[in-house]
Amino acid sequence: MAEVKLFGSWYSPISKRVEMALKLKGVEYEFIDEDLRNKSPLLFKYNPIHKKVPVLLHNGKPIAESSVIIEYIDETWEGPSILPKDPYERAMARFSRTIEEKCGVAMWKAFSSPGEEGEKAKEEAAQLLKYLEEEIKGKKFFGGENIGLVDISANFIGYWFGIFQEIAGLELLTKEKYPNLGEWIDGFINHSFVKDYLPPKDKITEVYKASAQHASSDTNQRSNFA
Amino acid sequence: MAEVKLFGSWYSPISKRVEMALKLKGVEYEFIDEDLRNKSPLLFKYNPIHKKVPVLLHNGKPIAESSVIIEYIDETWEGPSILPKDPYERAMARFSRTIEEKCGVAMWKAFSSPGEEGEKAKEEAAQLLKYLEEEIKGKKFFGGENIGLVDISANFIGYWFGIFQEIAGLELLTKEKYPNLGEWIDGFINHSFVKDYLPPKDKITEVYKASAQHASSDTNQRSNFA
Repeated sequence: MAEVKLFGSWYSPISKRVEMALKLKGVEYEFIDEDLRNKSPLLFKYNPIHKKVPVLLHNGKPIAESSVIIEYIDETWEGPSILPKDPYERAMARFSRTIEEKCGVAMWKAFSSPGEEGEKAKEEAAQLLKYLEEEIKGKKFFGGENIGLVDISANFIGYWFGIFQEIAGLELLTKEKYPNLGEWIDGFINHSFVKDYLPPKDKITEVYKASAQHASSDTNQRSNFA
Repeated sequence: MAEVKLFGSWYSPISKRVEMALKLKGVEYEFIDEDLRNKSPLLFKYNPIHKKVPVLLHNGKPIAESSVIIEYIDETWEGPSILPKDPYERAMARFSRTIEEKCGVAMWKAFSSPGEEGEKAKEEAAQLLKYLEEEIKGKKFFGGENIGLVDISANFIGYWFGIFQEIAGLELLTKEKYPNLGEWIDGFINHSFVKDYLPPKDKITEVYKASAQHASSDTNQRSNFA
């Protein structure tokens, strides 16, 4: 058995966060691509409470929740630091990660929920994007000169959301409104480390359209991506 | 200026988490008791995005979000460890903290939301409580022999919820249904380290009743506690 296994999905941004962390550290792993509409008994065994990807299996021991897995990876393997070393900077990175997470959820709702709920989500997303816009100002990455915790975690904002925004004809996150984030997105998706691992836009669009057909009554289709 | 200041509220379980972490480490601090219905400009300045307690100020630098603050405290000061040292055990503690957090939110909704939303929340809370019931089995505290991250974080479940449950005549968390959690609650609230810092039951009841009168249309009154 491989020492490190990752139960994930090639098109899930949440799963991709963990892949990026493993690749950043140079950890070799076996990738088990789950069919998210027909998950394996092993995934249910290793993540009985959420029944979601990603799950990392290290020497037979499972860990769920991407934020928990990423900190575990950073603490377990040598290589470039994912979190800063200084406790205050670490706290700031962890705080920005929580904001990024809330922002991603609001953006997904803004995209997928009709009516008042969608409008409220747009407002919330805009407020959180404003915070991230300030946070990234004058920096190449949230992690400074190098990609770190917040960059990895924000991959939905950095890549996936642009695709969904186009599908829905939304203009929530544009370079005009958020020039600093726009620059970060360009730098992020074109970074040699990231670019090779992002699933192609047309494939994501295809998956989304198929999943939307099967779940037209479910306004929280984000669950189809984890 | 004191080196460490905590903007909190004497009756907020979220704020109390941070107080417990500081006391566990033996850190001296100045406590600024915020009026949660008329928050200070300083709180708005230090936590502009959430505008909530708790905020820790260390050497003039602010940190928000209790989970982020607690990890900062553990990394910054000597003394008993709040998180385990072993990376896998740390991951397990962080995972249980996320479950405890979701459980607390569901319990609050079960208590405060009428109709279908409340019923759904009860089911969710029951499922998460089952996880915690298994987690605490055979252990004195979630942290093992000593109080740790999950115990501190779960203080709403360990203390506040019992009071609210009584107010509402709920029987969601009882010793009959969850004997291991029941034992943990007894051990937790009677622990010399905890017992002296819990606000009296009648005072919490008073605050809740006053806040319920002022916010009868707001089903998420948990926001009145942070």
